[in-house]
Amino acid sequence: MRVVMLGTSASIPTPKRGLPAIAIQRKAELILFDFGEGAQRNLLATHLGIDRKTKIFATHLHGDHILGIPGLIQTMSLLGRRKALDIYGPKGIKDFIESILRTVRYTLTFPISVSEVEEGVVCKEPEYEVHAVWGKHGIPNLAYALIEKERPGRFNPERARALRVPVSLWRKLQYGESVKLSTGRVVLSREVVGSPRPGIKIAYSGDTRPLKSVEKLAERADLLIHDATFDQNLAEKAVADGHSTAREAAEVAKKAKVKQLVLTHISPRYEDLGVLLREAQKVFRKVQVAEDLMEFEVLYRE
Amino acid sequence: MRVVMLGTSASIPTPKRGLPAIAIQRKAELILFDFGEGAQRNLLATHLGIDRKTKIFATHLHGDHILGIPGLIQTMSLLGRRKALDIYGPKGIKDFIESILRTVRYTLTFPISVSEVEEGVVCKEPEYEVHAVWGKHGIPNLAYALIEKERPGRFNPERARALRVPVSLWRKLQYGESVKLSTGRVVLSREVVGSPRPGIKIAYSGDTRPLKSVEKLAERADLLIHDATFDQNLAEKAVADGHSTAREAAEVAKKAKVKQLVLTHISPRYEDLGVLLREAQKVFRKVQVAEDLMEFEVLYRE
Repeated sequence: MRVVMLGTSASIPTPKRGLPAIAIQRKAELILFDFGEGAQRNLLATHLGIDRKTKIFATHLHGDHILGIPGLIQTMSLLGRRKALDIYGPKGIKDFIESILRTVRYTLTFPISVSEVEEGVVCKEPEYEVHAVWGKHGIPNLAYALIEKERPGRFNPERARALRVPVSLWRKLQYGESVKLSTGRVVLSREVVGSPRPGIKIAYSGDTRPLKSVEKLAERADLLIHDATFDQNLAEKAVADGHSTAREAAEVAKKAKVKQLVLTHISPRYEDLGVLLREAQKVFRKVQVAEDLMEFEVLYRE
Repeated sequence: MRVVMLGTSASIPTPKRGLPAIAIQRKAELILFDFGEGAQRNLLATHLGIDRKTKIFATHLHGDHILGIPGLIQTMSLLGRRKALDIYGPKGIKDFIESILRTVRYTLTFPISVSEVEEGVVCKEPEYEVHAVWGKHGIPNLAYALIEKERPGRFNPERARALRVPVSLWRKLQYGESVKLSTGRVVLSREVVGSPRPGIKIAYSGDTRPLKSVEKLAERADLLIHDATFDQNLAEKAVADGHSTAREAAEVAKKAKVKQLVLTHISPRYEDLGVLLREAQKVFRKVQVAEDLMEFEVLYRE
């Protein structure tokens, strides 16, 4: 899965950082976590394509996390999009989108569905789900995790040949069924198919204090993208503003046993990112500080 | 007056061009014509400062011309602005701003006033007015002109001395009054003060077909910033979409006898701007194609 950090600043854009947005390309689909002002410009720059099946998951209703959606809708319409756009977010997101559609003079070319969601499973697809838990911020914030279902185990053709299973029966075995050979011998699926392989899991905190619930949501994720607005010198401000420090984000990553941590929502005050990186690395080694257009290829574990 | 092109693309942002916005610094005040998505980022980059007395004049309610306003409001609030923000635009702008303020979770720190305006004088200040005329676009579009009042003529101290006017009476003469000397001689203001000097005039078309009314609005302007979405090869598309070609913009500038023309709202299809520049130059010599962050210093004529 390809993950692109479209915007990595906190609250106010800087010359180098746009407002929060993350793009995930999963097969033919585009999954967006937050979509701050200006994110469409970076999305266009990635050449991910904006005519894909698309879902947007907004963490909360602060402007910097959602104000790119209206412009994306306009651009999609200008380009003649036909595919539906699905938007998810906490209570209030519906009123926001409906107000925009009513007051901005669009010529909308595609259907938009908006779902107000809460903690729990907020989206079910055949191959994945999106789960959410409440964060702790000034206003309701949902942390999300994209959780792929297990994929079937790998089929072992050598083993099937050794058991003299005709090729015509392989498919059944591959999909979990047992088959009976002409010799009367019954071959079980698990004799020729390996254990189910884990899917990919990507978690995103939105704006939040470090939380046990987010830690649980992110458990063993391949990638955790976490609020790291401040460094430890501003630990009190982090508490007051409902954000996390780089060290706190690293502690969540460590306890959740994730594979990789990306720090984002970086306060415009930091020109030297080393401060954030170093304090996180002391707690959790596999960490990077996000930059706009930074990309990650999240690979399947075998 | 300092004029900065904050965004110069048509409808969709490109890697080089943001969505329509123009900033004018007039003394301590900031006057914005349109404010498309992402414009705040370029405004911050100009170091014009965003805590000035500020007016925004929106030409029309297409998203690319107004969707930067919500983010600007958020940033101004985060920076603790106290000064009022005045927003002007055609009917519907009020509903747009009010909906945004209702649905986005701001902590607003300053008052916002929104005025729905029509053709005519839309704003009167002691030193300038803003006039508007209807353009011709798919939806109602107002072209605006910032028109400074005449400034008093220049005081001629040599002449005053020659007439033996005591320095204590100079101020009265300067402000248009006559004075009586101890000799009984009456000195008229115009004997020592030159003719009133013209103020600066800057006109902006918004999105429109070339129009006689816009030409009249821009008459003898120091600077005309005009829609030039297409070149003449797309003249029919310009008619269909309610835009102008570079040549049409130049024809307006020529007839209006403006000092300087800037072409903006450039379709993303143009990588070579020479096409637009050359066809405009054939009609009107003093023309430039806008780029993001291009600046003009508009000087007083003496």
